[in-house]
Amino acid sequence: MSHAEPDEAVAERDDAPGGPGRPVTISYIARTAGVSIPTVSKVINGRSGVASETRARVEALISRLGYRRPAPSTRSNLVELVFGQLEHMWGIEVIRGVEQVARAHRVGVVLTEFGPERGGVRYWIDDTLARRPDCVISVAQLSSAERDQLRARGIPFVVFDPSVELPDGVPFVGATNWAGGRSATRHLIELGHHRIAAIVGRDRILCCRARLDGYRSAMEAADLPVGGDLVERADLTVEGGRSAARRLLGGADRPTAIFATNDLQAIGVYRAARELGLRIPAELSVVGFDDLPVAALVEPPLTTVHQPLAQMAVAATELALALGRGDRTPSTGVELATTLALRASTAAPPR
Amino acid sequence: MSHAEPDEAVAERDDAPGGPGRPVTISYIARTAGVSIPTVSKVINGRSGVASETRARVEALISRLGYRRPAPSTRSNLVELVFGQLEHMWGIEVIRGVEQVARAHRVGVVLTEFGPERGGVRYWIDDTLARRPDCVISVAQLSSAERDQLRARGIPFVVFDPSVELPDGVPFVGATNWAGGRSATRHLIELGHHRIAAIVGRDRILCCRARLDGYRSAMEAADLPVGGDLVERADLTVEGGRSAARRLLGGADRPTAIFATNDLQAIGVYRAARELGLRIPAELSVVGFDDLPVAALVEPPLTTVHQPLAQMAVAATELALALGRGDRTPSTGVELATTLALRASTAAPPR
Repeated sequence: MSHAEPDEAVAERDDAPGGPGRPVTISYIARTAGVSIPTVSKVINGRSGVASETRARVEALISRLGYRRPAPSTRSNLVELVFGQLEHMWGIEVIRGVEQVARAHRVGVVLTEFGPERGGVRYWIDDTLARRPDCVISVAQLSSAERDQLRARGIPFVVFDPSVELPDGVPFVGATNWAGGRSATRHLIELGHHRIAAIVGRDRILCCRARLDGYRSAMEAADLPVGGDLVERADLTVEGGRSAARRLLGGADRPTAIFATNDLQAIGVYRAARELGLRIPAELSVVGFDDLPVAALVEPPLTTVHQPLAQMAVAATELALALGRGDRTPSTGVELATTLALRASTAAPPR
Repeated sequence: MSHAEPDEAVAERDDAPGGPGRPVTISYIARTAGVSIPTVSKVINGRSGVASETRARVEALISRLGYRRPAPSTRSNLVELVFGQLEHMWGIEVIRGVEQVARAHRVGVVLTEFGPERGGVRYWIDDTLARRPDCVISVAQLSSAERDQLRARGIPFVVFDPSVELPDGVPFVGATNWAGGRSATRHLIELGHHRIAAIVGRDRILCCRARLDGYRSAMEAADLPVGGDLVERADLTVEGGRSAARRLLGGADRPTAIFATNDLQAIGVYRAARELGLRIPAELSVVGFDDLPVAALVEPPLTTVHQPLAQMAVAATELALALGRGDRTPSTGVELATTLALRASTAAPPR
């Protein structure tokens, strides 16, 4: 086997996250996979002539061994930005952050929405590999096979606001959801509330679990009850928040404050309060999470945890471009701090 | 002069909009501009070696004569989508419409925001010409020089929701702003209102002028006054709407209904009404325009004119792709119908 193969490259395998390891070569990959060096080279360069099963096996191996392709000599000056579904009130902030960095670095942004039932994902990987972007920023959830395909072509990617747990070493930018939930709850405690309820997402979205755990942590630190009757699960929608709040507020010993894990749910709490004749904040305090543009427009303006979406997008794009240049980055995962946006939906509990 | 020049192509000049005209050749352009055929060819193909003054003169001439480049043999499968500034509540609908068509046709969308002070426009034309997109969809306002540069390279473009008057023949997709303003006002008249005020944008944005004229038309058709004291100019913001409403509602013979030319102004009217102790809709009816996501979330939910942004974006993308393929399209300009979204902010006037 020749070690002068043009595609031959030396990369490092990290034995421990962050630590330098021993070099992984194409020939080592070929040996381990039981295929020829040209086959590995074809997979890495996205050329045809490899059985799909072999291709997948080599990709998975490359992904696992951490082979790092040398920085390409020509750059496409394109960044791929992918969303699962573009959210009405949420997507623009992210896009603006990415565009800001793209302008500064003079790179083009190719935007893809996978759309309903991930219809767009079918071609996305093939088209992305053909466009040879410098890097990928993924707001969508990529499968591990998709991540392997990108890795095998040496296209670095950064996960924006991960909604599921990622393997160690996958670069990401998120927000301090746990600390945000804790700070929102502590604000209510400091106002004098004791019966504080939480409305959380029904599904297993990672950020909501972190926000709920932040709530629990603040309650426990203040020796306050977090009994099952104080936590309601609901869709992350206005209607989800409304019906959860009706259940919470319908009982005898009703809470005097509600922490909702997103702003739409908080607006649903407003609806329920109006239906039940409860005034906000005099009779019920409400805190949301996200700080969507709508939060400042509702009446009373909503106190909520500000998620720095634009800064997160800036950080994700800078990180992705640095990885695309082959730079060593101090850390490949970061959570940016949330802040509490104090408005008019919280007050001391009624006497 | 040789007519077998490889870049030679025959295009049609429309003597009247929509009508076929006589062919415009590169040699005709060269003769008229007083330059050589290779010079025109260089301009069309974006090659260097032409003085910038000459280049601009040839581009303007090509633009005026309507030279149409033959459909390129290779397609880049890229659509350029450009925004001046991405609006929080407005941009996502547009992007989603473009993405929907992009998925169906399997083309990539390169998104650019020019950003504050059009910082991004500096490189955009050069980078766009280098990427050779199949077509451009422009939500930003392009200068006539920029339009000329695109035309000279045979890159078709469609203007989305034109904010200024366009020369005849520039392809666009808009909404029926005039009819929407008329329908909003007629709705208030049919409820029995006579003193109906309007809050309009301060600047010369085309859509706002059409919306105001629609209001005037409905008022005149019902023999109702449209005196100067009933029309207030203000910024297209919550604060703009609030201060305009305070002026309108502060006098003796105050209006019983207000038509605001966008939803943010309408939400400003809500604020002013609350400050003045006026209940909506019992004491004051309010109609907005746009149907932003926030319109359904405020209390009471806002009656407003729905602008079909996603469908407009779908139409603009289909049109741009058709022009990029060199298809003959039945019309190059279209306005899609608005509809009145009836919610809870309008009622009969107080007795």
